[in-house]
Amino acid sequence: MIIIGERINGMFKAVNQAIQERDKSAIQDLALKQLAEGADMLDINVGTAAADPPEAMAWLVKTVREVTDAPLSIDNPNLNTMKAGLDACSGAKMINSTTGQEEALDTFIGLAKEHNASVVALCIDEKGVPVDVDGRCEIAMRIVAKAMEFDLPVEDLYIDPIVLPVKADQTGPGKVLESIKQFAVLADPAPHIVVGLSNLSQGAVDRKLINRTFLAMAIGAGLDAAILDPLDTELMDALIAAEMLMNRAIYSDSFLKAYRQR
Amino acid sequence: MIIIGERINGMFKAVNQAIQERDKSAIQDLALKQLAEGADMLDINVGTAAADPPEAMAWLVKTVREVTDAPLSIDNPNLNTMKAGLDACSGAKMINSTTGQEEALDTFIGLAKEHNASVVALCIDEKGVPVDVDGRCEIAMRIVAKAMEFDLPVEDLYIDPIVLPVKADQTGPGKVLESIKQFAVLADPAPHIVVGLSNLSQGAVDRKLINRTFLAMAIGAGLDAAILDPLDTELMDALIAAEMLMNRAIYSDSFLKAYRQR
Repeated sequence: MIIIGERINGMFKAVNQAIQERDKSAIQDLALKQLAEGADMLDINVGTAAADPPEAMAWLVKTVREVTDAPLSIDNPNLNTMKAGLDACSGAKMINSTTGQEEALDTFIGLAKEHNASVVALCIDEKGVPVDVDGRCEIAMRIVAKAMEFDLPVEDLYIDPIVLPVKADQTGPGKVLESIKQFAVLADPAPHIVVGLSNLSQGAVDRKLINRTFLAMAIGAGLDAAILDPLDTELMDALIAAEMLMNRAIYSDSFLKAYRQR
Repeated sequence: MIIIGERINGMFKAVNQAIQERDKSAIQDLALKQLAEGADMLDINVGTAAADPPEAMAWLVKTVREVTDAPLSIDNPNLNTMKAGLDACSGAKMINSTTGQEEALDTFIGLAKEHNASVVALCIDEKGVPVDVDGRCEIAMRIVAKAMEFDLPVEDLYIDPIVLPVKADQTGPGKVLESIKQFAVLADPAPHIVVGLSNLSQGAVDRKLINRTFLAMAIGAGLDAAILDPLDTELMDALIAAEMLMNRAIYSDSFLKAYRQR
């Protein structure tokens, strides 16, 4: 399981403030804490409040890179901000994200090749998020074909079926699970399958319960990456137990601790 | 989801003592508590310590029946004890269980028809539990064919892929999940798919975490019945969240409470 820590995000008030004040230690602390709890990669998102998003992204990336060599997920829909993040990022990096439209794929997969980066591609096109599983699979196949066209290694491709708030549409989570099952047999070897987990429980009660329950279900369906909060202990416990049950982490009487320290 | 409460089982010391002492109220209390927490059906198991198992089973069944009309799952491998339980049980009942061998299926499915009972059939035959998914599917198909031969309604058939302790074989849970996915498309309408959940974590640490994580994964794969402990609050919360995420229980801000009271 590839765990992408979601906490360095300008949408959180404390992070936004740290960006405004160029408070390095607050950001670096958040980076190290997430890594200590088992994050493999860190998402870097300047949010929407930054005065100069490309400059803020570059600062954020460099600040985190000072304390870790972990891959960084440059998270922004804007091309200039994305480029600023990629340019500022030495070492391993990921583009998060491109939509599944032809033009966007050409741009961002091209950028991924240029920067030797991996890339998250969303199952969304000019018509929005498909209402059914087949529509998502169609976009996923287009994404895989485009990655092949650009000769992007399959291990650098992360397909996101798009998790929407369950409170808004209760048929959504089942469709995502079915999509994950189908993506897992789309190519051999399969691309990574990733979700942004927290969106699932937007506006709902018992958010943490909903998130960790769905994460276990999704891992059982074939999910192998997620953007989530590694500081949520019960979520991480569920993730580790699911990995152990899928035989991707060894059982021992200290399997929870061992996984976090891997 | 069909929740079969596991707590009335002579393997538990307090239950065994209640059986020995013919302590009705201890048993009835356990029945009512499980129903209050959301159990749809109650498993009735005399354990191995009863001096006269058929007589103990009949007493246990009648004792529980005094306080509830819920279906009872008569849980015993011995034919005489099973018959004693079925004869003692007015109203809805289930035979738990038969193996998948020809002769056992003839006996127990015949008995189910005779008593208008449902039946749990285990994916195990003279060679034991198959080591792979295909072997389990083969037995499941034999079970479905036998049920059709006896004209047993498909809604009365529960197929159990057999959950073994993960500590003994870490490849087991993944095979069970894959078996569940395949059983779900075995017939249309599909038979129920049931597991005895607690066996998964025998001998392991963090038993409750392992149980509830796997339950969520299994529900995502297509499980629709389980023998489990409804008094384990976190397990039930995970079950209810999974049901809600599969769109089989309505989301509301009190969805946990509403499900238990359904």
